[in-house]
Amino acid sequence: MSEQTTVPVKLGDRSYDILIGAGLIERAGQEIAGRTGAGRVAIVTDENVAALHLQRLADSLKAGGIESTPVLVAPGEKSKGFATLETVTNAILAARLERGDIVIAFGGGVIGDLAGFAASIARRGMGFVQIPTSLLAQVDSSVGGKTGINTAHGKNLVGAFYQPQLVLADTDVLDTLSPREFRAGYAEVAKYGLIDRPDFFAWLETNWQGIFTGGPERTRAIAVSCQSKADVVARDERETGDRALLNLGHTFGHALETATHYDSARLVHGEGVAIGMVLAHQFSVRMNLASADDAARVEAHLRQVGLPVSIGDIPGALPPAEALMEYIAQDKKVTRGALTFILTRGIGRSFIARDVPPSAVLSFLQEKHPK
Amino acid sequence: MSEQTTVPVKLGDRSYDILIGAGLIERAGQEIAGRTGAGRVAIVTDENVAALHLQRLADSLKAGGIESTPVLVAPGEKSKGFATLETVTNAILAARLERGDIVIAFGGGVIGDLAGFAASIARRGMGFVQIPTSLLAQVDSSVGGKTGINTAHGKNLVGAFYQPQLVLADTDVLDTLSPREFRAGYAEVAKYGLIDRPDFFAWLETNWQGIFTGGPERTRAIAVSCQSKADVVARDERETGDRALLNLGHTFGHALETATHYDSARLVHGEGVAIGMVLAHQFSVRMNLASADDAARVEAHLRQVGLPVSIGDIPGALPPAEALMEYIAQDKKVTRGALTFILTRGIGRSFIARDVPPSAVLSFLQEKHPK
Repeated sequence: MSEQTTVPVKLGDRSYDILIGAGLIERAGQEIAGRTGAGRVAIVTDENVAALHLQRLADSLKAGGIESTPVLVAPGEKSKGFATLETVTNAILAARLERGDIVIAFGGGVIGDLAGFAASIARRGMGFVQIPTSLLAQVDSSVGGKTGINTAHGKNLVGAFYQPQLVLADTDVLDTLSPREFRAGYAEVAKYGLIDRPDFFAWLETNWQGIFTGGPERTRAIAVSCQSKADVVARDERETGDRALLNLGHTFGHALETATHYDSARLVHGEGVAIGMVLAHQFSVRMNLASADDAARVEAHLRQVGLPVSIGDIPGALPPAEALMEYIAQDKKVTRGALTFILTRGIGRSFIARDVPPSAVLSFLQEKHPK
Repeated sequence: MSEQTTVPVKLGDRSYDILIGAGLIERAGQEIAGRTGAGRVAIVTDENVAALHLQRLADSLKAGGIESTPVLVAPGEKSKGFATLETVTNAILAARLERGDIVIAFGGGVIGDLAGFAASIARRGMGFVQIPTSLLAQVDSSVGGKTGINTAHGKNLVGAFYQPQLVLADTDVLDTLSPREFRAGYAEVAKYGLIDRPDFFAWLETNWQGIFTGGPERTRAIAVSCQSKADVVARDERETGDRALLNLGHTFGHALETATHYDSARLVHGEGVAIGMVLAHQFSVRMNLASADDAARVEAHLRQVGLPVSIGDIPGALPPAEALMEYIAQDKKVTRGALTFILTRGIGRSFIARDVPPSAVLSFLQEKHPK
């Protein structure tokens, strides 16, 4: 049904390929053996993914001549902390993997961030392969080399820039996601259109149903997303400049995630990004940067696919606008006290705005989220 | 008395200088401010170093316009683990340092390894400056970018390659070391002569007393050592080849440290390296690679400065040769089951020997350490 596509990520001696298509788990052993020469791997995964897909992956690796040791962690964001990092790192060492052997991250964003970080520090750097199993991980977190864990001081404040040697995005596994989880990943797909690919956003408006149902549109959407992210990362691997564009919708989104205490029953990351992108467009209209028509188009499309698009769409009580503003100020993307936002001049015309007046953001939030 | 010397470490865009000389703590603020532009730092140190030197460093930073937050850990190897890593990383985040700010490692090898690793993972990489306060740290661990912690599976098996932006080796602080600690660091100084600088080893045989008493010989010996290590690291930053030469004496040494359960009352790292270097030379004689005269010269010089030079010099009971052999086999420098040793063809003529027969090592150990 789907075709296979290769997206190269060009980072000098850290370059690698992203393979996208159906049935890649069944071909994982052959691809990993052929491309890395590794003889042993540790598969870091969570109990949910393991129940659905681990046996197939282990069989495929075995057929490729690769011995695998599974390392299971509990599903969910709570595994992204120092305690699980220590457990996973020790399990990698206990499996007696050598430096040339490979840690496979087999799961969603949490697993990719955690396993990638563990791979980067075990023996000061093991081989690393991503097999992302959520749409969010396939189009966003598995690409670009950001790994890490959360601490009491915030999310992703501890970690490493560590590139995989290979990413295998099997489009078939996405059929096991819940519709809500799929939609949340779709928010990041739409983001690439909104950053700098207006034609892609227009294509999504017409073709989104094929992506959800699993036609060739799905492979194409994932490939364009990975290519978009790879382009940005190749320009700015360590986020000293352009890479910040990938945070479109994320400053508002993170504040909302904090406000809901990362309670996934109320709001998952992609939903926060969806609302955040709508708010970023509306705020850009307020700042006389973008047209109200463009902001309305963004809101309409995200609503059409079933994503939340306003603060009021979040179930339950939220702290007042002033508190949301405080969360924004605490966001890690603050450089020497100045407030940096990703704003836009219209669909596909996002840019990094530095020195955005906090007072303008606060009054905007007060209007969008009245007491 | 001592003069100041600069040793450049050439690693492309990760290049940095090592400044060596008297009074550098008093000039730290000025050097760090001028070379990095940082406005805020966290000083990671242990309680012993803090009691002796912290106030002077904080004053110097303040005079250079830099605000500092001390992060104190307990002295000793036990601080080099996941628990203290988490504490230190959180303290860096709690101090609200930004990416351009700096973590200073102010102490011996444990502090350098721990603080450097924390600097590499906090915010996915902060600025990092080393101010080593032991001879061992000044000539070895502060140079080359290896950072890390220990786990139940072994020492330094978790960490990062992370280069500092600047190293300040203040030769005055070495006067506060115990003679035993100074001697242990001296073993690593002598190592550079034994690896590939026979003239330096001959110079040490004549001038070692000036190094111990703090004359200009001390600055010179540290500078030559740093230059030696910097040369090797520049050739092979990530230890895929030549860098293994720096492990001369370390394979036997690590086995002895393991056998004494890292009990510093019985054996400290530099002492293990001293015995290990003598054993490596004696084993090379046994393998018909080096002359007995050279091995005797190495043993005589290390004994002359007060270092232990044989397994029998270690106080207390040791496990039998077979157990030492097992520790060697478990050493992390094993690649796909083959035993790799640093052997020598004579003073200053060390080389990486792969596929050393384990049986030859075992019978050698049985002779050197009879039941």
